[in-house]
This record gives sequence, structure tokens and C-alpha cells, in this order.
Amino acid sequence: MTVPKTNYKKIAAQKLKQRDAKFISKWLIPESALPAKDTKDVLPWISKSGYLTDLELEITESTATKILENIKFKQWSAYQVASAFCHRASIAHQLTNCLTEVFFEDALETATALDKHQEETGDVIGPLHGLPISLKDNFNIKGQATTIGIVNFCFNPESFEEDAVLVKLLRERGAVFYVKTNVPVAMMMPESINHIWGNTDNPMNRLLSAGGSSGGEAALIKLRGSIIGVGSDIGGSVRIPASFQNLYAIKPTFGRFPTYGARSGLAGLESVSSVNGPLTNTLEDLEFYCKSVVDCEPWLYDGKCIEIPWRKIELPEKLNIAICADNLIVRPTPPIRRGVSMVKEALIKDGHDVIDWDPTDHLRLSDIITSFFLSDGGVHVIKETEATGETLFPYMEMYGTTPEMKVSELWKLHVERTTLIKKYLDRWLATAALTKNGKPIDAIITPVTPFPGNPNGKFHDSVAYTSPFNLLDYSVGIFPVTRAHKDLDPVDESSTNYCATDSKVWKDYNAEESHGGAVALQIVGRKFQEEKLIEMMKVIDELINYSD
Amino acid sequence: MTVPKTNYKKIAAQKLKQRDAKFISKWLIPESALPAKDTKDVLPWISKSGYLTDLELEITESTATKILENIKFKQWSAYQVASAFCHRASIAHQLTNCLTEVFFEDALETATALDKHQEETGDVIGPLHGLPISLKDNFNIKGQATTIGIVNFCFNPESFEEDAVLVKLLRERGAVFYVKTNVPVAMMMPESINHIWGNTDNPMNRLLSAGGSSGGEAALIKLRGSIIGVGSDIGGSVRIPASFQNLYAIKPTFGRFPTYGARSGLAGLESVSSVNGPLTNTLEDLEFYCKSVVDCEPWLYDGKCIEIPWRKIELPEKLNIAICADNLIVRPTPPIRRGVSMVKEALIKDGHDVIDWDPTDHLRLSDIITSFFLSDGGVHVIKETEATGETLFPYMEMYGTTPEMKVSELWKLHVERTTLIKKYLDRWLATAALTKNGKPIDAIITPVTPFPGNPNGKFHDSVAYTSPFNLLDYSVGIFPVTRAHKDLDPVDESSTNYCATDSKVWKDYNAEESHGGAVALQIVGRKFQEEKLIEMMKVIDELINYSD
Repeated sequence: MTVPKTNYKKIAAQKLKQRDAKFISKWLIPESALPAKDTKDVLPWISKSGYLTDLELEITESTATKILENIKFKQWSAYQVASAFCHRASIAHQLTNCLTEVFFEDALETATALDKHQEETGDVIGPLHGLPISLKDNFNIKGQATTIGIVNFCFNPESFEEDAVLVKLLRERGAVFYVKTNVPVAMMMPESINHIWGNTDNPMNRLLSAGGSSGGEAALIKLRGSIIGVGSDIGGSVRIPASFQNLYAIKPTFGRFPTYGARSGLAGLESVSSVNGPLTNTLEDLEFYCKSVVDCEPWLYDGKCIEIPWRKIELPEKLNIAICADNLIVRPTPPIRRGVSMVKEALIKDGHDVIDWDPTDHLRLSDIITSFFLSDGGVHVIKETEATGETLFPYMEMYGTTPEMKVSELWKLHVERTTLIKKYLDRWLATAALTKNGKPIDAIITPVTPFPGNPNGKFHDSVAYTSPFNLLDYSVGIFPVTRAHKDLDPVDESSTNYCATDSKVWKDYNAEESHGGAVALQIVGRKFQEEKLIEMMKVIDELINYSD
Repeated sequence: MTVPKTNYKKIAAQKLKQRDAKFISKWLIPESALPAKDTKDVLPWISKSGYLTDLELEITESTATKILENIKFKQWSAYQVASAFCHRASIAHQLTNCLTEVFFEDALETATALDKHQEETGDVIGPLHGLPISLKDNFNIKGQATTIGIVNFCFNPESFEEDAVLVKLLRERGAVFYVKTNVPVAMMMPESINHIWGNTDNPMNRLLSAGGSSGGEAALIKLRGSIIGVGSDIGGSVRIPASFQNLYAIKPTFGRFPTYGARSGLAGLESVSSVNGPLTNTLEDLEFYCKSVVDCEPWLYDGKCIEIPWRKIELPEKLNIAICADNLIVRPTPPIRRGVSMVKEALIKDGHDVIDWDPTDHLRLSDIITSFFLSDGGVHVIKETEATGETLFPYMEMYGTTPEMKVSELWKLHVERTTLIKKYLDRWLATAALTKNGKPIDAIITPVTPFPGNPNGKFHDSVAYTSPFNLLDYSVGIFPVTRAHKDLDPVDESSTNYCATDSKVWKDYNAEESHGGAVALQIVGRKFQEEKLIEMMKVIDELINYSD
């Protein structure tokens, strides 16, 4: 089918209409009954609205382990659980516009089949029997489209014939899929907006962006329309939305979780690899998911996965933590600075050894990763967007203007990046000379972005807080610390400092507007330290004791 | 320094002269006392020649474990051991032209220092105290050049200031370095020949090539001028020479052993990664080396290494083995076919389950890897060779004629390769339906090349027996089976069959000329199965019981 170039709005409208028909009408709340457009914080709304039954509330505010146990011991049916999450996801979508593909009917059928299996055999089908899991739009699911925010992918194909490896493994163990969640065009912008599904708002403060590229996922989980969601990250795409919604998340090292069968915005880019990881409301769910995926032995089903079983980690009694409070590219705004201080003080008070981390090479790492993203001169993105005539958002204009790189130039950048990786690792180990116990640091703690959620459309940062760790391929965790507060976080510095980007961020920072926004941080481990990160996050969690 | 283009012969001659001055003159054997040029098999020559003392023979024909034990318990000094290997390496070089950099004096000084340490402290410096290890020319060694067969690298730099990570780790534990070994230009040809050091001959049959690119290493080890040598492999460069000299070897999955600080012939190529691994005369030494390197925790020193400790593997009582006797691109010549049959029959007789393996996609994998090698249009190779005006050998002419690829084209090839990796892994697991016990195969056994060593200058194969496993990044072992025999391996098929390459190979095969050549095979595991491969090689070794 040749699509006329001016057709993108029509195609998108058609797709949207088809999708909207898939919501279950009895669950749709009239516009007039929804919170007013200027209600910033919609976090408490669902539980107080009366639209969910007590059981639906109990189910959706539970943990994965509890849900699985209650299904196994027949307190709840898989159908009840699936229905509760479908219902809540439907409302979450009305509040934040977080969903793309919706397939509640499929989910309810699957759940019914699971209940039947349990009734007939007396046993669950697998360790994830009846657990609803939401997925970022890039995962291929049998019978669903994968649009990743590109109009040309709306009906191309109309649906995939095979599950992505991750989806297949989770499904075989009993997971129930019911929604896919919103992303930016090609997943290459820091806010989740595109010409098909529009923008996802941040439920903690709807003046702020939900972030990108896993923004739909983060908004949905924050409103407990999902218990565990999976996002992907090639420059910060799990971590930015997780941090903007104060969730827990893991960006693993490439090869820990299977990636095969996920649609890429930059298919074939391997100079830096996209990974996927969970976003959750609790650390318990985060750990449960990670262990569950690795227990599937994904290396038998995805040739790029590494055979490292989920390991039991004994942390040292006291940790050595380096803190990088400022990447010297863009200054963190006041709420983020306050969050860093809270964690630093809590760690010191608890007897951990805290040193400073110098962001040496972060700027260069961030520049190199941008060059990798653009190394094909935007050929892939432009081909797909031009096919329907869709226009590029300002965040992506460079995909239409950067010249294609030669392979010999790419090789040179690879060499430089490999040298920087070595240098970074050497610096990490050299901290042994700086700590009290003579051992290297266990982790680096650093902001995720300069802001507690950027005002919609104003993400000025170049993802330089997150992307260096993609290039290093380090494992990273996200944990919540506090919320921005208009009285505690006033503007206290000039808007002119490091660079133009820095100036823009500070010019746009407004304590009143940011009130209630999320303050979460990254905890960075070396390669494949996902288990250790989670253990360290438990330590911090106990000290910080965050709740919304 | 600008080097005039016609200068390559002069520079090479100067480098060669400097190197030759580093041999210890009392060890040099007069031309007239060496075996005649037409003596094909020089394997028995050294031990019978009388040039080595009984102690030197005992040391150089020992195993790594024995050597380390004898040094530790003061039966032998580190100096005696180093001296014995330097002496024998010097002779091996006279027989095969296997060495590049020679630094016997440094080695003897290091050994003296180790002896002193042991005397003073009463203990060895580390688990490799006094063990001589030879290295392929691409490893940077402090104080030595790394020419990798390129004239422009003779004095550029004249010496490196830092050890490669692997060298550093081994050295810290007590290993003694004394020689580097010959390679082809840029390590990108299947025979070890270049304009600096010339060609390395095969000591089993000097009419045959030692193979490449780790040919110098293989010839040296075969003559026991080294106990353990390290080669590198991006398309077959450890495996081909190991097989041509009937050695044991491991080509690991990328990330198992450290690669940082090795000079690359195609620096920055990452679409397929060069790895390094050991070549040895015994399985015991092979296992010892692999475990020793992994025990160094290389992931702390090379950011691309993966934290997988050396694991203890319990094999199933009987193995499931798939045999790929012929890749349907080039037919194995009679000796190789006989070797495959020997192993197949021995396995069946011992009760293992043997099935056939279809070489589906091997040709395409092999074509893709060639495209990756040439993706920069030879820019890197041409820049370095043109700098001194050195001419390309016929094997490398395509580096001067292939157009540079665009990054967007490279990305497309990456996508195709990733799909083929998934398909291959699925085929592997699907063998569960073909085996008697319903479990997938443990390994694939297949030839390394079509020949028992190719006649010098006549390697017509496109490395399509080895390179698919580089693209898959599978772990592979090499084990010896038998030697070519003029009476057992007559020409029995026409020289026209699959393709032009196949015809050339069969046209050049001559049972008389190949007599005594090596017949070794590959045993292929999935990613990171180095331990399991070694255990399986032990099983086969016991059945085959090879000796020269």
C-alpha cells in the first residue's frame, strides 16, 4: 500500500479511533466527572473516586508476590486480577493519556483460560500465573501492532505474528498482557509525545512531562494501572520517566534481559545497545521481576543474552558510595540538589563512606552517544516519517539535518569510546585509595536529569546525566527520594552558568510550577551488577523511607 | 616522520636486522647443521639434535602445572625454565620462522628477579611464578613494538609504554614473556606472511602453511618453544593455525578473556569482535590457562569483560553431539573427512548420541562477516600500508577495491545478523526433538578448514568453516584427531563440485604433499561455554588418544 505523503494525520486518526473502540465502555468516566484540567496532582484521585471496587483497589495496590499467592491459593481469580488492572489502567489513561494498544478482552480471555487450567489441574500454569504486566509500545506482542510513535507503523504490520522473546517467556509462565504504553516518535525524545497517541502527562504534576521514552509506562505504573511494567533504555529512556514519577527501575547491562523481538527506533544501531528493564512502585516488585526474567534462562532464547544466573549478594556492612552531585554540564535544579543532599546525609549518618565522584568524560561520552544515534544521518527515521509525511518534533530535528557518517569514522569513535570505558573503570577501581577501608566504591549516586520532571515541552537537557552509563553499559537503578516543594526549593542561582542548555533549564525552573514533582536518583553499578544494585537500594530505602 | 612511499623494504629490513641482533648467538645453529630445506616433518628434530640439554628437554616437554610446581618446590629455578624456553624458541624459529619480537634478555632478567623474590620471601610471587607464555604479535607488551605484519608499525611506536590488560594480569601473577609470534599483514589473511618477517612454515610438514593469523604461535608451540601461547581470532585466526598444527585451542566468546590493549588490524570494527584464546600441546595446559585468566577477574580491568567466574561443569554421562561433516561450500579433503569419521565412530561406539547438523545459514553468515571486515572500504588497512608503500598480498586485494559502506547499510546487516543468530540458537534448541534423551545437543563438531594444512600460498577457502561462529559469538574448542596419510587419504572425488573455491581446493589437494599434515576439528558450544567445551574435549581425547 502506497501512502500519500500528506496522509499522516488521517492514518493516525484511523488508528486512534480503532484503539479507542477497544476500551470497555462501562469503565469510561465522563469527561465532566474527571478531575479538572488544572488539577496538577492526580495521584490520590483514583482511590478516592469510587470508580473502583474495594477488591479492585486491594488488588491493584498489592504487590506481585501477594497477587500471585492470592491467585495460587484461590483468594482471587486471575480474571478478577486482570479485570482490576484493566479497569484501573483505563482510568489511568483518562488521567494521563498513557496507553497505546489496548487489548483488555484478550487479557480477560487469557485470565479465564488460566483460571480454567487451575481449576482442572489443581495447579498454576507457572510462577507468573495471572500476573498482569504492562509493556512499553516497542515490544512485539502476538496480535498487536508496534507503532513506537511512528505513523507509518500504525498498520505496518497491522499486527505482529510473534511475541518478542521477553513476552514469550513471561507469557509461558502465566503473565497476562493487557496494554502497551506511550512513547515518543521512534523512542528518541525525552518526552512521550507523537502524532498518533499525543502526549503523556505526569500524574504527580500534570504541568510536567511524564518523561520519555518509557513515559506511558511510568505514568501508568504510578497510578497503579500496572504492577510491573517494562520499558527500554538506550540513553535514559527507562530512567528518566521512572525518575519523573518517583518509581523504582533497573536499566540493566546489555545481555542480562532478552531484547530480541522489540522494535527499535534505530534498527541495527549497535555502537550502543538498547536494553529493557522494569519500572515498579516497590523494590520488592522490582527484585521479583528481575529474578523472574533471569530464572527463565533467557540466554537459551536470545542469542545476545549472557548466562549469568540471578545471584545472591552479600553487601559489605557499610557501603562505599561516590556521589556525583553535578555533571558540570547542567546544574541540577533546587529539588534535585536537595534530594542528593538528603541521600548523602542519610548515608553518612548511617556510617557509610561517602566520597565525591568527578564527572570526568561524561560530556564526551554524552557527545559520542549522540553521534552514534545520528550516525546513519537519520536515514532510518527519515524514511519512516517521510513515508506518511509526518513532521519531526523539534527534539528530533537533527535526524533530518545530520550527515551520514562513514563506517571508517564510526570505527574511530568506537576506538575512542573503548578507551573511555577503560579509563572510567580504572577510575572506579582507583577509588580504593580514597575510601576508609581501602576498597573501591560500591556505587555512584547521581541525578537522573536536572529537574523533578521538566515542564511539558521544555526538556532542555541532553540526557547527559543518563547516557554516559549507556555507553559504559553499566547497570543502573532508580530510586525515589522526595517530591519537589515550592517552599523548600526556591530558585537560588542565576540562570546563566555552564552553557546555553544550563541557562535554559534554570530559566524554566519555577518552584511553584514544579511543586509535587518527583525527585529520584540513579545508583550506578558496574556491568551486570543488577542484584547488587537492588540490595543497595534496599539499604537506601530504609534510610529514606519515601512515600508519595 | 614522513616515510617515503617506496621505503617499505628498507624499513622492514632495518626492523628485521634489529630483531635478529636480539637472538643469543651461542644458541644459533649454523645453517648447515639445520635439517635440509626439503625435510618436511621437523617435529622430532629438536629433541634428537643434541642442541638442548636433558634438563632443557625435560622442562620444555613438561606441562604448565608441573613447571610451576617444580619452581615452587625449587626443583627448577625460574631462570632455568625461562632459559630453556628461550633456547628452544630460538631453534623453533630457525626451523619455521615463527617469531617476531625477541626479548630473551628481558625474560632472563625477569626470571632472575623472580628467583630472587622467592629466595628472599620464601614464596612465589603468584600462581604463574616463572611460567613462560608466548604471545601473538598483536598484544602490546611494555618495551616492545607491535607490528602485526604492517611495515608502518615497525617503529610506530618503536615500543609500547603499557602492557595490554591480559599481559599485565599474567605478568602480575608471575608469567614470563620472551617472544611475540608471527602473523599475516593486519592479521587478516589465513597464512602468516608479511613484508617484515616473511612466512611461517608448518613444522609438521613444511610444504604446508602454518596457517593464520596466529601461525607463528602455533608453529612455536608445536615445537615446544612455548608451553602456552595466546592467539587472537576474528574469523578463525586461533583455530586455523591450531588445527594446522594439531594443537588444542579455545576461541572464547567475546568478554570471557580481556582484549583491551591488543592492536587490531581493523581498529574500531565492532560488528564482529576479535577475541583471544590459548593454544597448547595438552588439554591440561589449555584448562589451566583458561581458569588462570578468569581467576584474575578480568572484568575489573577490561570494561568489556563479563563477570562469569570459572565454573565447575558436570557433563551428562552421555553427550548429544551434532556433526556437520561438510559445510556445503567447500568439501573437506580426504584426511579431514577421515578425521570426522574417526570421531563420529568413536563417539557412537562409546554410547553418545550423534546426529547430523545442517550448515543452514553458514554461507550467509560467512558472507556477512566478510562484509563487516570490509565495511570501512579498507580505509584503515590502506592508510597503514600506503604509508610505506607496501604492496597488498593477493589474499587482501579486496581491501583496496571494496567501496566503503554507509552506516545505514551497516545497520541493515546488523539486523540481518541478529536475526540469523536467533535462528541458529532456535535450531540448536530444537535438536531436543531429534535426540534420544529429548535434550538439545551439547556441541557441534565440524572441520576447521577443508585441508590438513593448505599448501603454502593456496588457502582457497573463505574461512567459512570458522567465521560463522565468530558472527554467532559461540565458544569453540580445537582438538587434534590424526595426521594426513598418503595411503589412507587418496584423492577420491572430482575437483569440480560446489563452487570455484571448492574446485581449487580439490585441484590442489595432493595426498603425497599433504602427508603428515594435521587433522584437527572444532567442537562448538553456545556462548560462554568454555568450561563445558574443555570437559567435552577430555571425553573425546580419551576416545581418540592422539599423539604425533
